Amino acid sequence: MNWKPQIEAAAARIEGHVQVTPVMTSATLWDRPVALKLEQLQHTGSFKARGAFNTLFASEVPEAGVVAASGGNHGAAVAYAATRLGHKAQIFVPEMAGPSKIALIERTGAGLTVVAGEYANAAEAAEAYEAKTGAMQIHPYDRPGTVAGQGTLMREWEAQGLDADTVLIAVGGGGLIAGALAWLQGARKLVAVEPETSCALHAALEAGRPVDVEVSGVAANALGARRIGSICFDLAQTHLGASVRVSDAAIIAAQRALWQAHRLLVEPSGACALAALLSGAYVPEPGERVAVLLCGGNIAPDPLG
Amino acid sequence: MNWKPQIEAAAARIEGHVQVTPVMTSATLWDRPVALKLEQLQHTGSFKARGAFNTLFASEVPEAGVVAASGGNHGAAVAYAATRLGHKAQIFVPEMAGPSKIALIERTGAGLTVVAGEYANAAEAAEAYEAKTGAMQIHPYDRPGTVAGQGTLMREWEAQGLDADTVLIAVGGGGLIAGALAWLQGARKLVAVEPETSCALHAALEAGRPVDVEVSGVAANALGARRIGSICFDLAQTHLGASVRVSDAAIIAAQRALWQAHRLLVEPSGACALAALLSGAYVPEPGERVAVLLCGGNIAPDPLG
Repeated sequence: MNWKPQIEAAAARIEGHVQVTPVMTSATLWDRPVALKLEQLQHTGSFKARGAFNTLFASEVPEAGVVAASGGNHGAAVAYAATRLGHKAQIFVPEMAGPSKIALIERTGAGLTVVAGEYANAAEAAEAYEAKTGAMQIHPYDRPGTVAGQGTLMREWEAQGLDADTVLIAVGGGGLIAGALAWLQGARKLVAVEPETSCALHAALEAGRPVDVEVSGVAANALGARRIGSICFDLAQTHLGASVRVSDAAIIAAQRALWQAHRLLVEPSGACALAALLSGAYVPEPGERVAVLLCGGNIAPDPLG
Repeated sequence: MNWKPQIEAAAARIEGHVQVTPVMTSATLWDRPVALKLEQLQHTGSFKARGAFNTLFASEVPEAGVVAASGGNHGAAVAYAATRLGHKAQIFVPEMAGPSKIALIERTGAGLTVVAGEYANAAEAAEAYEAKTGAMQIHPYDRPGTVAGQGTLMREWEAQGLDADTVLIAVGGGGLIAGALAWLQGARKLVAVEPETSCALHAALEAGRPVDVEVSGVAANALGARRIGSICFDLAQTHLGASVRVSDAAIIAAQRALWQAHRLLVEPSGACALAALLSGAYVPEPGERVAVLLCGGNIAPDPLG
């Protein structure tokens, strides 16, 4: 697939509908300066709005609207994008999405069903809704339109003057890093960072193909994909620089470091990439210039709730 | 006073010691786009680090170190800057500073005394400490070195491409807006925003001279100066575009809007300037391009505490 034109087209489509998120360089988080992109400031608090808008703009949305199953962030993004564009939206989330993400979806005005059990149960309910109503299902990560939308993030960061050899990115289902891999095509080193307890990409790379994994841990509602997307897996086979894993304790420590050093409040998934640097799971070479993507801010409990 | 060279000198002194804070444009907070500067991401969570570093670099710091009285943010900045530069520091805060700001000061390693009563009691204790030890007192706002340090913020924002006719800034003792007035010299319209319950600048402008006011309300530990600084007052007489006041309810609504729209978590003082726009306390002309300075992020309770 020729990704660059797809991502350029996505960027043109979604311009003005997504937030250009700010960047900064921290001199105090780590031994050397670290470039940060504050994508947790995106509409609905995560990068997911990029893929959601791109998918909606590139699709013929039926009268019945759209439907999504989600641990929270993808559902919030689809709910926000769809309602902004005047489409009906119905979102199915498992209870583990938590009250902050559930409230975020409610505020968009979209329809919301909280499903007992885990993500798989919400996905089942969404499929049943799709079959019954004819609504269009929006997949959270493994679709070209989603990946191209998420790819606009790295394009934007480069346009903002990204000065780094290496970029650390948290991985759940792989939509975000797939977009970055697709945009960069090896031009910078990308490091995939997964929780030890939710590491679908790492397992796939070891097995030589996407395989099912168990998921748990502090970032599970955002990063807990049971199987890596095939688009991500294929791109990772060619272009990924490294795959590392971090503990829940390292994620929580990174979350606290961001808040204490810079008053950046992110959810656990949003601190996952930084955790690799601070914990030593990824050790850059001397002189290697490092950037970290902060990807989600929907912390629970809601600090103003 | 010829301020521009003072502010240029301050910027050169403090470069690398303070954070270049990011900027963004929000299309969703208000009817029209609003430029934001995220100064709550500064070291120690407020703009105060600028004035503190500039004052320390421009001074002969005695062996006994420095002393400051503060509602919290100034003390944290002095503590951070002094300890980073290898000076002793002793900070006196009233109980109203609250546990978040007290913990922030403790983390710097500076000496800390929590004083019963209000700010005036902390100020008395700091004066006694100064007299006894010979430590250098660092005033929170009404000194040229402090104002020049805070002035580096508007200089930095212009260098980042600030595109606005009007900038809204929260006012407590007036150091921050004095720095902006000193840098801009009337080149853009500055709007001073104060809580209804802590409005020393507004009272001074009405009286024609700085006068004492009562202070209370949700932003009092940051904006509750009993008397506006004379440097600020003099600059405001010449260059200030407007002075408006906002209710505590408007401040809390703006704080919530920033969190819900952009996952920007600020303390009440940090939302005060935006409150003027969202509540209609300040109504821009059609076509007037507006910017809002977010100045503090030390929210209580600490969301990760």
